[in-house]
Amino acid sequence: MRTFEEYKEKLKNMRPNIYIDGKLRSRDDALLEPGINTVGVTFDAARDPEYENLVTTTSHLTGEKINRFSHIYHSQEDLMSKQKMIRTLCGKVGGCIQRCMGCDAINALYGTTKEIDVAYGTDYHERLVKYLKYYQENDLIGNAAQTDVKGDRSKRPSEQQDPDLYLRIVEKKENGIIVSGCKAHNTIAPYADEIIAIPTRMMGKEESDWAVAFAIPADTEGVTLVCRSTSPRPRVKYDAPFTKYGACDSMTVFDNVFVPWERVFMCGETKFAGRLALAFANNHRFSYCGCKPAVTDIMMGATALVADYNGIGKEPHVVDEVAELMVTAEIVYGSGVAAAATSKKNAAGALEPNFLYSNCGRYFAGVNIYHEYEILASISGGLPATLPPENDFINEATKEYMEKYIMRNPEISAENQHKLFRFISDYSCSSMGAVYQYAGVHGGGSPIMEKIGIRSFYDIESKKNIVKYLAGIEDDEK
Amino acid sequence: MRTFEEYKEKLKNMRPNIYIDGKLRSRDDALLEPGINTVGVTFDAARDPEYENLVTTTSHLTGEKINRFSHIYHSQEDLMSKQKMIRTLCGKVGGCIQRCMGCDAINALYGTTKEIDVAYGTDYHERLVKYLKYYQENDLIGNAAQTDVKGDRSKRPSEQQDPDLYLRIVEKKENGIIVSGCKAHNTIAPYADEIIAIPTRMMGKEESDWAVAFAIPADTEGVTLVCRSTSPRPRVKYDAPFTKYGACDSMTVFDNVFVPWERVFMCGETKFAGRLALAFANNHRFSYCGCKPAVTDIMMGATALVADYNGIGKEPHVVDEVAELMVTAEIVYGSGVAAAATSKKNAAGALEPNFLYSNCGRYFAGVNIYHEYEILASISGGLPATLPPENDFINEATKEYMEKYIMRNPEISAENQHKLFRFISDYSCSSMGAVYQYAGVHGGGSPIMEKIGIRSFYDIESKKNIVKYLAGIEDDEK
Amino acid sequence: MRTFEEYKEKLKNMRPNIYIDGKLRSRDDALLEPGINTVGVTFDAARDPEYENLVTTTSHLTGEKINRFSHIYHSQEDLMSKQKMIRTLCGKVGGCIQRCMGCDAINALYGTTKEIDVAYGTDYHERLVKYLKYYQENDLIGNAAQTDVKGDRSKRPSEQQDPDLYLRIVEKKENGIIVSGCKAHNTIAPYADEIIAIPTRMMGKEESDWAVAFAIPADTEGVTLVCRSTSPRPRVKYDAPFTKYGACDSMTVFDNVFVPWERVFMCGETKFAGRLALAFANNHRFSYCGCKPAVTDIMMGATALVADYNGIGKEPHVVDEVAELMVTAEIVYGSGVAAAATSKKNAAGALEPNFLYSNCGRYFAGVNIYHEYEILASISGGLPATLPPENDFINEATKEYMEKYIMRNPEISAENQHKLFRFISDYSCSSMGAVYQYAGVHGGGSPIMEKIGIRSFYDIESKKNIVKYLAGIEDDEK
Amino acid sequence: MRTFEEYKEKLKNMRPNIYIDGKLRSRDDALLEPGINTVGVTFDAARDPEYENLVTTTSHLTGEKINRFSHIYHSQEDLMSKQKMIRTLCGKVGGCIQRCMGCDAINALYGTTKEIDVAYGTDYHERLVKYLKYYQENDLIGNAAQTDVKGDRSKRPSEQQDPDLYLRIVEKKENGIIVSGCKAHNTIAPYADEIIAIPTRMMGKEESDWAVAFAIPADTEGVTLVCRSTSPRPRVKYDAPFTKYGACDSMTVFDNVFVPWERVFMCGETKFAGRLALAFANNHRFSYCGCKPAVTDIMMGATALVADYNGIGKEPHVVDEVAELMVTAEIVYGSGVAAAATSKKNAAGALEPNFLYSNCGRYFAGVNIYHEYEILASISGGLPATLPPENDFINEATKEYMEKYIMRNPEISAENQHKLFRFISDYSCSSMGAVYQYAGVHGGGSPIMEKIGIRSFYDIESKKNIVKYLAGIEDDEK
Repeated sequence: MRTFEEYKEKLKNMRPNIYIDGKLRSRDDALLEPGINTVGVTFDAARDPEYENLVTTTSHLTGEKINRFSHIYHSQEDLMSKQKMIRTLCGKVGGCIQRCMGCDAINALYGTTKEIDVAYGTDYHERLVKYLKYYQENDLIGNAAQTDVKGDRSKRPSEQQDPDLYLRIVEKKENGIIVSGCKAHNTIAPYADEIIAIPTRMMGKEESDWAVAFAIPADTEGVTLVCRSTSPRPRVKYDAPFTKYGACDSMTVFDNVFVPWERVFMCGETKFAGRLALAFANNHRFSYCGCKPAVTDIMMGATALVADYNGIGKEPHVVDEVAELMVTAEIVYGSGVAAAATSKKNAAGALEPNFLYSNCGRYFAGVNIYHEYEILASISGGLPATLPPENDFINEATKEYMEKYIMRNPEISAENQHKLFRFISDYSCSSMGAVYQYAGVHGGGSPIMEKIGIRSFYDIESKKNIVKYLAGIEDDEK
Repeated sequence: MRTFEEYKEKLKNMRPNIYIDGKLRSRDDALLEPGINTVGVTFDAARDPEYENLVTTTSHLTGEKINRFSHIYHSQEDLMSKQKMIRTLCGKVGGCIQRCMGCDAINALYGTTKEIDVAYGTDYHERLVKYLKYYQENDLIGNAAQTDVKGDRSKRPSEQQDPDLYLRIVEKKENGIIVSGCKAHNTIAPYADEIIAIPTRMMGKEESDWAVAFAIPADTEGVTLVCRSTSPRPRVKYDAPFTKYGACDSMTVFDNVFVPWERVFMCGETKFAGRLALAFANNHRFSYCGCKPAVTDIMMGATALVADYNGIGKEPHVVDEVAELMVTAEIVYGSGVAAAATSKKNAAGALEPNFLYSNCGRYFAGVNIYHEYEILASISGGLPATLPPENDFINEATKEYMEKYIMRNPEISAENQHKLFRFISDYSCSSMGAVYQYAGVHGGGSPIMEKIGIRSFYDIESKKNIVKYLAGIEDDEK
Repeated sequence: MRTFEEYKEKLKNMRPNIYIDGKLRSRDDALLEPGINTVGVTFDAARDPEYENLVTTTSHLTGEKINRFSHIYHSQEDLMSKQKMIRTLCGKVGGCIQRCMGCDAINALYGTTKEIDVAYGTDYHERLVKYLKYYQENDLIGNAAQTDVKGDRSKRPSEQQDPDLYLRIVEKKENGIIVSGCKAHNTIAPYADEIIAIPTRMMGKEESDWAVAFAIPADTEGVTLVCRSTSPRPRVKYDAPFTKYGACDSMTVFDNVFVPWERVFMCGETKFAGRLALAFANNHRFSYCGCKPAVTDIMMGATALVADYNGIGKEPHVVDEVAELMVTAEIVYGSGVAAAATSKKNAAGALEPNFLYSNCGRYFAGVNIYHEYEILASISGGLPATLPPENDFINEATKEYMEKYIMRNPEISAENQHKLFRFISDYSCSSMGAVYQYAGVHGGGSPIMEKIGIRSFYDIESKKNIVKYLAGIEDDEK
Repeated sequence: MRTFEEYKEKLKNMRPNIYIDGKLRSRDDALLEPGINTVGVTFDAARDPEYENLVTTTSHLTGEKINRFSHIYHSQEDLMSKQKMIRTLCGKVGGCIQRCMGCDAINALYGTTKEIDVAYGTDYHERLVKYLKYYQENDLIGNAAQTDVKGDRSKRPSEQQDPDLYLRIVEKKENGIIVSGCKAHNTIAPYADEIIAIPTRMMGKEESDWAVAFAIPADTEGVTLVCRSTSPRPRVKYDAPFTKYGACDSMTVFDNVFVPWERVFMCGETKFAGRLALAFANNHRFSYCGCKPAVTDIMMGATALVADYNGIGKEPHVVDEVAELMVTAEIVYGSGVAAAATSKKNAAGALEPNFLYSNCGRYFAGVNIYHEYEILASISGGLPATLPPENDFINEATKEYMEKYIMRNPEISAENQHKLFRFISDYSCSSMGAVYQYAGVHGGGSPIMEKIGIRSFYDIESKKNIVKYLAGIEDDEK
């Protein structure tokens, strides 16, 4: 397993192909640092006795000790440990730990490649296993590039004016394929070792060019990452651990990129495009059953704490709102537990979370995220929105005023009052907080997608039959 | 295991101590029949090859085949099977299967009696085990009499003007105890073999008279059941299976009732009153994670079916509402699965569902029940409220009009249109439906009780600490 | 103005054409009595000094004193008084006062007939004015028969297999027209003097047969009313004023019914069918801005009172829920006030409520009705669902038990505790309560219809333009 | 009336007493510019023929033409015009127009000062009228400094450890008073001419030092404003009108500030502290019935437009969500209309909005604000959160990629797609957007305050009486 330092060293040596705010950047650019620090926690924790058991496990391929983020699930415990790991690590960085993306992609490919091979006699699974060994041994960071830019939402991939609006195979060559297109919303991509591309949806028979999956180094020729960096407002004096963590999302452009065959895991098998897309969605929504409760943990901790600081910690409406957050967190987490407890073995002998429950959990998180921010705002009062900047608490002319007038519960020092309100302001009344709101709705698939997922596989006919039975209805002859 | 007939035979021979609508009734009274039919399904299913595996299991005490409703959980599978059994059987009767009450009471007593014995050197657990063997061998129906009438809600048991407003020990005698009081909302009690009484809440040191648990035959001298019967509107011609099922709730009055020591399972151990109350609540809320999804199944089946009959089954808003009900059902059921998957072994070596998840599931069911009825009403249109009585569909003068004008989707016969709307009317626009709404809020503990339960055991300090860490707050010295 | 007695006398002499539960009934049948009593309140109040000013006004046609339910609005005060009258009278009968239907129909016809005349040179308005004078002088009760049975909801009137599924003109004769069809959900019809039929929707050019409006006596040859009666559970001893009020809904069948020309107010003018349908909807939704707050008044009164009786009247969650009901009532009522304050003069010089606000008010009432019942159930506890029947409070064998154990707040007598819980049970945990839930969703048009109404007339382009302006977007050239 | 230029000229000459981010700033500092531009619109519109009638009116004191923001309401039309003016102008700046604060303060003082004079024979009203003439003639901008910092929320003003935590009278002198304390969340204060201080709550008899109201120039000796500036992210190339508008909030510190008697409008009359506080709240919540609909207008315009751009403008779920926003906007606006239509004349002969409806409107806006952002996020998709910075759309290396891959509906140019998504990102996924969320909850009083306001004045007893009547309950004798 790599150290955080080794990971950063590797990044430094990659080909610069990242643009942020109009500039080409190498991977040691300050704008990437918050995201890199976040990922770093997954390396550090693997070596920290307190978290080692949670964050490492044994590879089923090599028997070696590996980071759990590179693992293929073979037991319910594997799944539950992953969920717990995510919640724990997200709590340490104040939000998304990001590394689940690669983990979810390899697990999705693991079963699907086997199924394709069974159906068509291909050897994708063997290729993938070989790749996985490399991935685990080198303790790599993978980005899952799934969401295409999608163009006109009312049209299918093959109907778009510009065929590149969904990533596609431009040419098949002897030694590999050429692909073009653009994947959006690619968190972690700018500081990932590898980009793992998979389809974003079901494909029709005529859409074999768009049924493609592969993995390539993130600095491969032809790949350009145009990015937006998200991090907490920087601090002047009153340092806070969470300010060093952040994320970076990429629009990942593939401009005639060559992928060698050994890195191609699907190539035209349209029937399995939807299966792979959903397998990733399933694993990723399961991940959300770990990370969203972590965000809610922070919300409820902040709400409870600010109520204490305001002197209203025991007020019934506060207690009730905090309990509301507990329920939200645990319904989402419990849905993940249920998904693990009823997980199903796939063709490759690995486990996949129960799609129904992973979707229910992600759905419930998605429809509640804005309300969680609302609760925090409601109990915090208006100060997070009007808190004067940090320097006004430092500058001699105003420092005393600020400390005098921020005082609430007299048992809490002015400094701690200040630190808490600044945290809440930076966390929930900020650009970063707003990004978390959007991510809470759309990351891993928006609620409407989970509803579609759920109802697609739900046996509604059996429910109609219950009613027909109870109501004494026999089917009409036709 | 008994047959349904044997059960009814036994009921017939019990001492009449049931009042409904001002009359003393024996247990073969027509007003009790719907409830008895419901319980009957649990006997019949145990002998039906299709359900036998689900509804029977092996006693850990005797090794004999027993009805699962008499079983003490010793594996996750025990718990999950119970949940599945409840959902299945509730679907067959169109609502509450009722028999879980006794099951939840004996499981609650099983661990708690052991804990009391460990603490005080008593022999309650041994008594209980002996009782359980009798209970299982005779395949009995037990009612859990928990909720006291409670008098002034702002006062504790010992503060009430009338000490009987919580069931209490009036006298301890050599061979047993004398109790007085009244337990409310006792579903199944009028046709149960046994009444199992347990405390409704925590008790203070001064409340040892109110810390009492026991089991007695339902027709014991001094016990009077004043009841209300709930069943679907009866039918004249268009029969429907669900109309034969119903329930009966009792205010169970204990007027100086003698309980022999071998049937006493708690007697003054105030410290364990709350533990027992919560253990029952936990098991019963876990049961709700099986039965409420069954009610939602009916809601969603009816909603989907009436939309088909109305010709709007594919309309986006219909599809979305039905999916909403799917999510509701599966979040509740999934919470039960999570409670089972993370169940904990108690002092007696049996399993108890994870309190956190059983409460989350019950809570979510409770806050959604009215909305479920709203969805069904919304898609059904106004007809369930204005549908002329059945005889208007029979009487020659109006029959043709009714059949002509009830037609919607022309592929569905007038008779089936009629049957479905009558079912929906009788199910959701009726006294019985309204009882289900109240029961959906309060049965097993209203949502506010689950929130109290959850937050009582929740480690909110650890969440505050996450925020303190992220915000860089060190504790104030005091 | 008529007395209640005169009204009943008239009913008694009408041709029996009412079926309920398979029997032909005359209009003094006991099943109609609760509905008739409700309407009676509008006659009595007109003669009661306390309400006279609210319930009577001066006809703009004759200058005579008339019941306000027969009035055509000519001032904002007319509109606001009507709203206030409805809220007041609904409070006296515990629900829908019903008589608004005819009022809303005549107001809708008043403007629309004028518009048709202007467009086509017809004389509908003159006919209507003549009819109105008769209507006012005789202080009549009118039912608005609007909602057709509608058959397959995915098809238009002219596309149905059976053309009668929307009321239609079968034949035009020299002295009048022949119509056939069936109008559903016709509250008040069985004890109305007159049935006023209007279209339920917009009609296309090819649907002139379905564009028809007229008024006829309710016992006209060919008219058959197949009804369902709704009333509170009857009482044995503990009388309560609200139990004598109820309602009756009719499926009103028109089987080749002759309507003389002077009673025909639209005959084929398809362009105005939608206008008339919406004009009635507008007036009727405005009425809902008066009656729904009355229902909420009862909900909040009952919730506040039962909390007092339970001893928890000052508990924060109770206070908050009651305040929630206050807000609901007043947003709905306030929307009505806004609709009145911004009402618009129509072609006939009368006022019509502002469609936007009447729809907002009715919408908000519709989406909250189930939640209101949920609040009442939540604070009441489970007793309304399990309260033993009245006779158990009378019968000597159980009376004392019941009185002993229903006690809560010791300052309230057992009798009053009993009366309140019986009221809540009969009001909210009953067939009648469930009918009110359905009516709350669908009566006057379900929330989805108000949304459609609102967005049809809303200037969304102007809102897009605000955004284009702010965002600096100039329109694409095409 | 002043011009925008005259206003800015005046600001420039005021004593610098503003700190932002640790620096003392004069009033032509760039950080104040966005706020000043916003206020400028109220000057420009008064001279713009299109808005002149809306934004100007005639002073009831002088008969002169004045800006409507300086007017005292004397007719329902005055109130409705103000509401319309606010909605219109907020639409022009993309949010809060700010100037209502002073308007609401003077209207609140107008009636209250009269009432104090009547009660105590003081001459506050005369002082105020004199001040108002000066205020109107000079077309001044006033800030209402109401919300105290409040310290420990569980304690009253007089119970705080530090008496300054509520603004208070330190000393009464012959020519005036000395005050100390700090008012928080003072929008507009840094570029206001005047600060008008009023109490934040009811005061007890012992709290006469805290019952104080006055108006002083914003640069008075002893006044220090510590501020936070909020504005949209600046643009590099793709300019958008809304980016030049913003706001600035101040913690306004009063450190032994002298106020001459002619500027003191309350001085120790504790009985009227609550009355004045609520009078301002009433007027300000009425203002919110104009400004929140303007924010919703932008939300719905953006949602509808982005749906068009995504090619899904006609999708049922989009149409429904947009309609949801229409209802929200119009319920809030309609509540304002109702408040105006039922406004009441105060002791000074001016009108005050109906407190019930102004609170209902503000409440409903407050509980919906986060949901409105959720709707916009939901329909926009994830792009507002991951949109690369503007320079990536300018830089040659990435410009083409960006324009190629942002394309959706092919009828909309890449430039307009870009502009819209940048607007939505800057508006809803930004620090400024988050400030609007907080302001939407807390500005003018959070929803919990409106509920308290409503229930304080609500006649709940009359509702209990309706239920007692219907239920046949006669009061217990005690």
